[in-house]
Amino acid sequence: MRMLDLIIKKRDNLELSKEEINFIIKAYTEKKIPDYQMSSLLMAIYFNGMTDRESTYLALAMKESGDSFDLSAIKGIKVDKHSTGGVGDKVTLVLGPLMAACGAKFAKMSGRGLGHTGGTLDKLESIKGYNLELSEEEFVNQVNEIGIAVIGQSGDIAPADKLLYALRDVTGTVPSIPLIASSIMSKKLASGADVVVLDVKVGSGAFMESIEEARKLASLMVNIGTLAGMKVYAVITSMDEPLGYKIGNTLEVIETIDALNGKGPKDLMEVTFKIGELLLEASGIAKGDDAIKLMKEKIENKEALNKLIKLVKAQGGDVSYIKDYDNFPKAKNIIPFKALKDGYIEAMDTEKIGIAAMVLGAGRERKDDIIDFTVGLDFKKKIGDYVKKDDVVCYLHANLIGVDESLKLLEEAIKIGNKKRKHILIKEIIK
Amino acid sequence: MRMLDLIIKKRDNLELSKEEINFIIKAYTEKKIPDYQMSSLLMAIYFNGMTDRESTYLALAMKESGDSFDLSAIKGIKVDKHSTGGVGDKVTLVLGPLMAACGAKFAKMSGRGLGHTGGTLDKLESIKGYNLELSEEEFVNQVNEIGIAVIGQSGDIAPADKLLYALRDVTGTVPSIPLIASSIMSKKLASGADVVVLDVKVGSGAFMESIEEARKLASLMVNIGTLAGMKVYAVITSMDEPLGYKIGNTLEVIETIDALNGKGPKDLMEVTFKIGELLLEASGIAKGDDAIKLMKEKIENKEALNKLIKLVKAQGGDVSYIKDYDNFPKAKNIIPFKALKDGYIEAMDTEKIGIAAMVLGAGRERKDDIIDFTVGLDFKKKIGDYVKKDDVVCYLHANLIGVDESLKLLEEAIKIGNKKRKHILIKEIIK
Repeated sequence: MRMLDLIIKKRDNLELSKEEINFIIKAYTEKKIPDYQMSSLLMAIYFNGMTDRESTYLALAMKESGDSFDLSAIKGIKVDKHSTGGVGDKVTLVLGPLMAACGAKFAKMSGRGLGHTGGTLDKLESIKGYNLELSEEEFVNQVNEIGIAVIGQSGDIAPADKLLYALRDVTGTVPSIPLIASSIMSKKLASGADVVVLDVKVGSGAFMESIEEARKLASLMVNIGTLAGMKVYAVITSMDEPLGYKIGNTLEVIETIDALNGKGPKDLMEVTFKIGELLLEASGIAKGDDAIKLMKEKIENKEALNKLIKLVKAQGGDVSYIKDYDNFPKAKNIIPFKALKDGYIEAMDTEKIGIAAMVLGAGRERKDDIIDFTVGLDFKKKIGDYVKKDDVVCYLHANLIGVDESLKLLEEAIKIGNKKRKHILIKEIIK
Repeated sequence: MRMLDLIIKKRDNLELSKEEINFIIKAYTEKKIPDYQMSSLLMAIYFNGMTDRESTYLALAMKESGDSFDLSAIKGIKVDKHSTGGVGDKVTLVLGPLMAACGAKFAKMSGRGLGHTGGTLDKLESIKGYNLELSEEEFVNQVNEIGIAVIGQSGDIAPADKLLYALRDVTGTVPSIPLIASSIMSKKLASGADVVVLDVKVGSGAFMESIEEARKLASLMVNIGTLAGMKVYAVITSMDEPLGYKIGNTLEVIETIDALNGKGPKDLMEVTFKIGELLLEASGIAKGDDAIKLMKEKIENKEALNKLIKLVKAQGGDVSYIKDYDNFPKAKNIIPFKALKDGYIEAMDTEKIGIAAMVLGAGRERKDDIIDFTVGLDFKKKIGDYVKKDDVVCYLHANLIGVDESLKLLEEAIKIGNKKRKHILIKEIIK
């Protein structure tokens, strides 16, 4: 097989076979195919796309380029969720303990990401002492014992995907739906979970800006999962405003604790319950209204909160933080951002709001940026709320870094007008 | 300027500016842009094409990456022709002396190419002693004196084109009309000619297989030339059969001598006269029927043949070869290829016929292959001719290499049936 022939085949819009895709990924990982051939293939894929079969073979080949987790020693149904990334998205932190309380096994390995705010790992690290590194044995034992573990990704997961992503990043081939889908699914297929629900975000703060694109991505990932023999559902949710009211690592853990105490914001709970419902259905634990009822029970009777406390304790974290979140270290300055005029909040540019949190220190622009767990944004008003001039729209939690820029971004991001708008949070379910 | 932004711009089908194209070519030539970014840009160009303006800027930028010839010391109009490459195409050898005899200046620097048969340089080298290397001064003086010089390309002509072509060759981005046109024109713009006629071949033995593609390529090259301030015409000619009857280096020189003695094959003369007419018109020497009349005169009175003799003499070649071509060394074996049945020759797969000559040793498959000047094919019949079973269709001139393969290829290439077909040689003129 010659790479040149395969580039030409894809360029001419013919379907690559499983053997051809395996050859490409294996040879590229072994550095037998030069970057300049791979990048021209990626650009041809950008233009011609890939069939569901090709995307599945690509995801499988990238998965097989590295380690996979064997979680067969965990008893019960192992559930996982994945979000394409949104601002204020702390669903994993709420959902993990909740699923464990409902009897599913939440054995999650998380990667650290670039982004407006830290990833799940960063949020957990804001809890003093929380240890992200467990041995495989410790990991399995903990999940068997308390139903949940959340650790950093160890092992060499889908190295081909890492190589490919780095190349896509510098060759203008990132926004290709089959490449995005294969990349995400290569890691999900390696995760060892039985059931996965994907949360595909759509809107200004999300990777997919239109519902059509989000639908394509979600459907393709569900198809890849299904073709590869995994149970995968997807939900498309709006990023037209941040999820919940709090953005920033400590702030999001605090909102998570509120949520598990039954005081979670409506939108955060809606997404959490929808993904939870799908996971419980796919696991055969409960379905529809029964699933919702079960989850609400587990919150009311504090079993879910207890799972979070058990998780933090098991992984060495200071549970006093969870029991009373006043124990968290706080940012030095709390600065109000006030409404510039009377009216309804008509629109929020979520991407700009994410950046407004990042410039305070809540996220990483570059891999080696250091996160300040204490900083972030705490909103008091969101879309549809009425404000009078000088009402506080949100508080900046800051440590004297990035305040001016953050305020300027918020001013641009938040549109006040005379229409009371509603926005639909859960757009579609794809099974 | 960042290469990534320019890749994305082209990927999104926006027009690159002159400054952007200059940046890309300069930085790539200086190895400041990695191959993997250039190849993804090339694939984006393959899919989205380039405007005439972009193609012109690209041709100019590649020309400016290296040396250009200053032929201003040559008095008179300097004419040049370029063929996209065909089987049996010896037009340059006939046309050069003919143009010189008509009063134009034929100052040609030729490159060596890969292909079914050797290029113009190889054909001239089959004449003992012919020297392809002249100093700039010798070159200019010779053209001023006798009106013609044909030498090998010296200097560093369009090095960016060489780099780009090598990359296109291994990344599936060769067949892109704007890239082909810019590549050819970058070298023509550096050649120092005043007037150029491009012979774009179309058909089975040609780079462009359809008339539409050939028309696009021809028009684009004419537009590039015009936008860059050069006088460029194009003619689209058929490659549905070889041009003339002889294929192979010595054999083609022999057919050239026949042509300049007034005994050239009809098709070869038709193309030669059409290109000559366009060159004479663009030079202001003669137009239409007057141009044809002038050329025929120069052949009848042997002035054109004399120019060839003068050319060979001036460059150190043995003129006895031209005066009596029996002096050429000959292949050891003359093997007939006979018709398998009665009928008309309906079709000739020119590409296969070219390969049938190459496998005998007439052309190069790889850069360092050595050409055997003596070998080749000498056709007796072409499309529209009637043959009886066992009539000789062509003679293989061979030195015991590649005969079996060549015969097999000829058998596949030549279709005998019951239709007497005509084929149109000159398809279109583009001014």
